[in-house]
Amino acid sequence: MPMTDLRSSINVQHEEGDELSFWSKYPNVQKEMDKVEDVLEKTVKTRRKIVEEASMDLLKAGGKRIRPALTIICAQYGNYDSSKIVPLAAALELFHMATLIHDDIIDNAKKRRGIETAQSKYGKDVAVYTGDYLFSKAFLLAATVNHGEKILHLSRFVKAICEGEIEQHVSKYNYHTSASTYLKRIKYKTALLFGLCCQVGAEISECDPYIIRNLRKYGMALGTAFQLKDDLLDVTGNDETVGKPTGNDILEGVYTLPFLYTIQNTAYGQEVLNILKRHHFTKKDVTEIIHIIKQSGGIQYTKNLEDRYYDKAVSSLKRIPDHECTHILLDLIEMMRHRMS
Amino acid sequence: MPMTDLRSSINVQHEEGDELSFWSKYPNVQKEMDKVEDVLEKTVKTRRKIVEEASMDLLKAGGKRIRPALTIICAQYGNYDSSKIVPLAAALELFHMATLIHDDIIDNAKKRRGIETAQSKYGKDVAVYTGDYLFSKAFLLAATVNHGEKILHLSRFVKAICEGEIEQHVSKYNYHTSASTYLKRIKYKTALLFGLCCQVGAEISECDPYIIRNLRKYGMALGTAFQLKDDLLDVTGNDETVGKPTGNDILEGVYTLPFLYTIQNTAYGQEVLNILKRHHFTKKDVTEIIHIIKQSGGIQYTKNLEDRYYDKAVSSLKRIPDHECTHILLDLIEMMRHRMS
Repeated sequence: MPMTDLRSSINVQHEEGDELSFWSKYPNVQKEMDKVEDVLEKTVKTRRKIVEEASMDLLKAGGKRIRPALTIICAQYGNYDSSKIVPLAAALELFHMATLIHDDIIDNAKKRRGIETAQSKYGKDVAVYTGDYLFSKAFLLAATVNHGEKILHLSRFVKAICEGEIEQHVSKYNYHTSASTYLKRIKYKTALLFGLCCQVGAEISECDPYIIRNLRKYGMALGTAFQLKDDLLDVTGNDETVGKPTGNDILEGVYTLPFLYTIQNTAYGQEVLNILKRHHFTKKDVTEIIHIIKQSGGIQYTKNLEDRYYDKAVSSLKRIPDHECTHILLDLIEMMRHRMS
Repeated sequence: MPMTDLRSSINVQHEEGDELSFWSKYPNVQKEMDKVEDVLEKTVKTRRKIVEEASMDLLKAGGKRIRPALTIICAQYGNYDSSKIVPLAAALELFHMATLIHDDIIDNAKKRRGIETAQSKYGKDVAVYTGDYLFSKAFLLAATVNHGEKILHLSRFVKAICEGEIEQHVSKYNYHTSASTYLKRIKYKTALLFGLCCQVGAEISECDPYIIRNLRKYGMALGTAFQLKDDLLDVTGNDETVGKPTGNDILEGVYTLPFLYTIQNTAYGQEVLNILKRHHFTKKDVTEIIHIIKQSGGIQYTKNLEDRYYDKAVSSLKRIPDHECTHILLDLIEMMRHRMS
């Protein structure tokens, strides 16, 4: 899929040059997403200009805003109350932004969403505190909505996500990680938050527990597929489209499924191992490894798994009574399936 | 004051060799502090052993636990409910621990409370996530207590404290900081949290608003004096007693009051400036600067200010009706005044 197709699948280039988001096809979602954007912009404003700049850089770089959109859409399955849902959706995006900023410190990442990362531009001092600041703002916003219970959810997920990140850290450079361990890791890293976004939206709108449960399952499956796609893009994408250097995961010792499959399940494994053993392992060696992964079938294996999770997401939606929002969630699956960044 | 005096002022050496804390003199406080300790230990347990170890190291290194003690003591001015106060007090200590761990990343600190810091022992990856994990646990605990409102408090303070830390960061190596700007900085860095600990304790016990306000003022004044003492100890203490290398603030460009006073208000200022201008500024240069600060009266100036804040703390207590807990808070002032670490 050429890059222009990608842009049209996520952002529609407007005649005047400004971008319309994917959500503009769904006015009831777009209207609410605009409010979320306003809340986000107001929230990152602080007297500490350097924190504001670091947050604003990330905010303005865009991103897909899938998490707040999931909350809004799932909330529309019930008694939608904009005054509760918008701050909560914004809180979930802020929370996600905080984890991105802290992740970038750890990965020593130079670029994110095509722009320089906070830690690279402002130093790790500012990055640590900007992440903490966004965390606290996320909790603050969430606390204004629901007096306690949703905060409990959010805190539990912060905890789970931190545990997931630590898990990833301790298994760095470990190529013995099994596919199931890997899937558990991305559950913590991405799927839980996608599921939470769906769940809290539906809960606050007082949906039937059966609907809440299936929307959460939809979110979990979509999040898993999303992370598998992200991991694929690190291997198959190009730097410009993806907005960060490809092969970075391998360079940093974060071994994802295409890599793990290749090393553990194919005759190409030994070749990869030999490259890993080289002294002064560089980006050039990574390119060689990526070439081997492509030959080995590691990409196709991961793509198949990704597809299975999209199917799971569809199945969850099929289990709930038909609703006008269901086609949006189905469209979102297709958009995710075809994204190239 | 010799070190043995200090120990008896904070920890009483028991005959069998185990330590009794300062609070053992006050059974009603000690009993609750023991419960806080249990909650802290249970809370840092996680399947991610490395996070648990990093948290446990800091927990076991002790520290004075002043913040949770303030919450417990101030709560005893009203209708004390242990089931609410203990988790909240533990949350405040966890929150403090999280900020310590993140501070150490930024300061590149090697030691804290006499032990190796998380970032030095486990790397910044683990330190960033351990801090985040403790933050989330703090919010989680606080959310179980009070459904929303106290979380709002806590989040606001995280925000304020992050802003304070950023303020400190942006003014690093700036020796033009005025005494009033410096006092504002330590307000955010330390005093607000001390004040919050007192305030939420009294609030949850449904104290009279006048009492809540004055207990908060007590906490703010005590916190300010506490930070001034900390800054003094960085200049006057010795590595072993303080548990971290002295002069570290100056080395890291964090200029505190004894330093700022000397450079801005005394004839010794130029001498200090000349040393700062040296290439390859080292610990030896810091020792020279500390010597000059001592000659210049910078220590005495800061001590006088510290005393004024203890006096303010006493005044706040005098404004509220006599209560059996007041003598504990007065004793705490004396303990703080004479501490040497």
